[in-house]
Amino acid sequence: MKMNINTIKHPTLLIDKEKVIRNIAFMTDKAKKHKLILRPHFKTHQSAEIGNWFRDFGIEQITVSSVSMAQYFTKNAWKDITIAFPLNIRELEDISELAKQVKLNVLISSEATAKYFSENINNSVSYFIKIDAGYGRAGVKAENFTEITKIVQICSRNKNIGFKGFLAHFGNTYHAKNKEEVLKIYQMSKKRLISLKSHFVKDFPNLILSIGDTPSSTLSTDFKGIDEIRPGNFVFYDLMQHFIGACTLDKIAVALACPVTDIYPERSELLIYGGAVHLSKEYILDKQGNKIFGQIVTLNKNSWQITDKPMYISNISQEHGIVSVHHDFLKSVKTGDLIGVLPVHSCLTADLMRQNGGFLIV
Amino acid sequence: MKMNINTIKHPTLLIDKEKVIRNIAFMTDKAKKHKLILRPHFKTHQSAEIGNWFRDFGIEQITVSSVSMAQYFTKNAWKDITIAFPLNIRELEDISELAKQVKLNVLISSEATAKYFSENINNSVSYFIKIDAGYGRAGVKAENFTEITKIVQICSRNKNIGFKGFLAHFGNTYHAKNKEEVLKIYQMSKKRLISLKSHFVKDFPNLILSIGDTPSSTLSTDFKGIDEIRPGNFVFYDLMQHFIGACTLDKIAVALACPVTDIYPERSELLIYGGAVHLSKEYILDKQGNKIFGQIVTLNKNSWQITDKPMYISNISQEHGIVSVHHDFLKSVKTGDLIGVLPVHSCLTADLMRQNGGFLIV
Repeated sequence: MKMNINTIKHPTLLIDKEKVIRNIAFMTDKAKKHKLILRPHFKTHQSAEIGNWFRDFGIEQITVSSVSMAQYFTKNAWKDITIAFPLNIRELEDISELAKQVKLNVLISSEATAKYFSENINNSVSYFIKIDAGYGRAGVKAENFTEITKIVQICSRNKNIGFKGFLAHFGNTYHAKNKEEVLKIYQMSKKRLISLKSHFVKDFPNLILSIGDTPSSTLSTDFKGIDEIRPGNFVFYDLMQHFIGACTLDKIAVALACPVTDIYPERSELLIYGGAVHLSKEYILDKQGNKIFGQIVTLNKNSWQITDKPMYISNISQEHGIVSVHHDFLKSVKTGDLIGVLPVHSCLTADLMRQNGGFLIV
Repeated sequence: MKMNINTIKHPTLLIDKEKVIRNIAFMTDKAKKHKLILRPHFKTHQSAEIGNWFRDFGIEQITVSSVSMAQYFTKNAWKDITIAFPLNIRELEDISELAKQVKLNVLISSEATAKYFSENINNSVSYFIKIDAGYGRAGVKAENFTEITKIVQICSRNKNIGFKGFLAHFGNTYHAKNKEEVLKIYQMSKKRLISLKSHFVKDFPNLILSIGDTPSSTLSTDFKGIDEIRPGNFVFYDLMQHFIGACTLDKIAVALACPVTDIYPERSELLIYGGAVHLSKEYILDKQGNKIFGQIVTLNKNSWQITDKPMYISNISQEHGIVSVHHDFLKSVKTGDLIGVLPVHSCLTADLMRQNGGFLIV
């Protein structure tokens, strides 16, 4: 839909297709070069249309973070899906139903879940064991061979179930402050996974290691021992990835177009229609410890530009954003103008904007 | 819909109708006692069904925060609506269209907007001047009589436009740490509005003062000079209101039911299916400076209970919540159980759950 940006009336998420395609091309090239399976995480866009752009790059395997997302992409003809969230046994019937239609992988992360899964699944499903490689959020600790062995034994009782390997998410890279910190976390986490693999590979020669975060997948050049990557955010990137050092600002492929509804010259601020229900309340801290809820870009008919001096959303409420602006910008802006906002966390912004205003592909 | 809570499969927002009705009754009684117009803000629930519960209390005038919300409630037979957001001139055609169907009030907060409004509106609309009574987010400063006079003059050029009065939101009460701080902010802000009213009331004897935040509306007992209140959050309340001192925990009328997907005894934590796309990333800080993303309640067949010792969500990502639990609770919980979460900010949680899982009225 080639709509003129200037006709936008309320907050609308602009998606720059060229940038998205470049981001997909970058990651598929990288996966090819390092002989990795690329199983992109579709929770970032949750869109059938954007999903289709991946098909042109030969992508057939995808990752999602919920059963409902798996159902949505199954309806949109995806046939090989990993639900990268520790199995929720309350949804086992829905999972079993899905498994009739697609090649499905789930995550097991405890004996209790393994037991329920093994006793109740009637259709063919593969599973990864979810490994905590140092992040400390979810999964079995990478050193806990005893627990892992028990899970494999329990699951082996049901012939419908296949053991696929170990899956981890190095989510601690999101707290890194630069490229070096990302790579340090990556190498430490990878080391744990490789030890684990080498212990179990004797009995399970086909097991694979699947990892996933966008910072590592983007920045690392050493994937030795890794079989699959599942980054999601890279399709859009965002301000957080920029602050981590995982992307330049020009790679961010989404911007929220927001009407300027008021101008406060005395405090060098604008009020925009665009708030927490559009961008989320995710923030990053600048060097002075001030919260940043998004970075301003200027809009033209069908694209956006980075400003010479950065300007940020400094405060946000349900529908309002407060933008701190420079003197020159203040002089040029009028009530009723549109400005763009590069979101802090594009996954959350896209999730909100699917419902609260919609996407506009430019 | 009287569904058994225990059949829930994925994050679902439980709405305790009895508590909601009690909260509505409290606020309508209070408004009656103080001879105030109650024009509740419907952005908190955004639900036609919950909106209808207000009708039994004689409510006919409502507040919304966007044109799309005004359109939604117009379709649901509401006839008197204030759009409490500084006029977005890009939506003026939609506003004009709405004004044919309902009694509509909008907010004007600058000469620029007043000019556009006055020159372009063809149907009957009233306006409030949006006043900044100390919060510092949006509106004309209460002391700026010159600007206010100019706005009134500009708007008076168009006979379709009626001047209704002054509207303010004391949003700084949300940053208060106790009842005393709320009341101090309230009194200071109210004083500014009363001075303003007394200056303009000679020329506009029917002008009204409209204020709105839930902490002030709940805690104040002195509404002298105020004509209308527009609280919204009180319908559900939430953990933030509890921390401010505006409600007890038993008045919070919503809880997110979440499946427990993993248990980590070694770190006394649970992993729940329930994250930022359900609760939002809004947080409050405890006395030690730790972030709290929600408080745990236990669920039974059709309700929830506050636990003896409080337990909180300490970390949240897109779909995951990490809950820190006490030893006793840890012993009693199993994978696949459901627990409840009192949200930090019910407006944002309800906005997300309209789409990402749905409401369940219990």
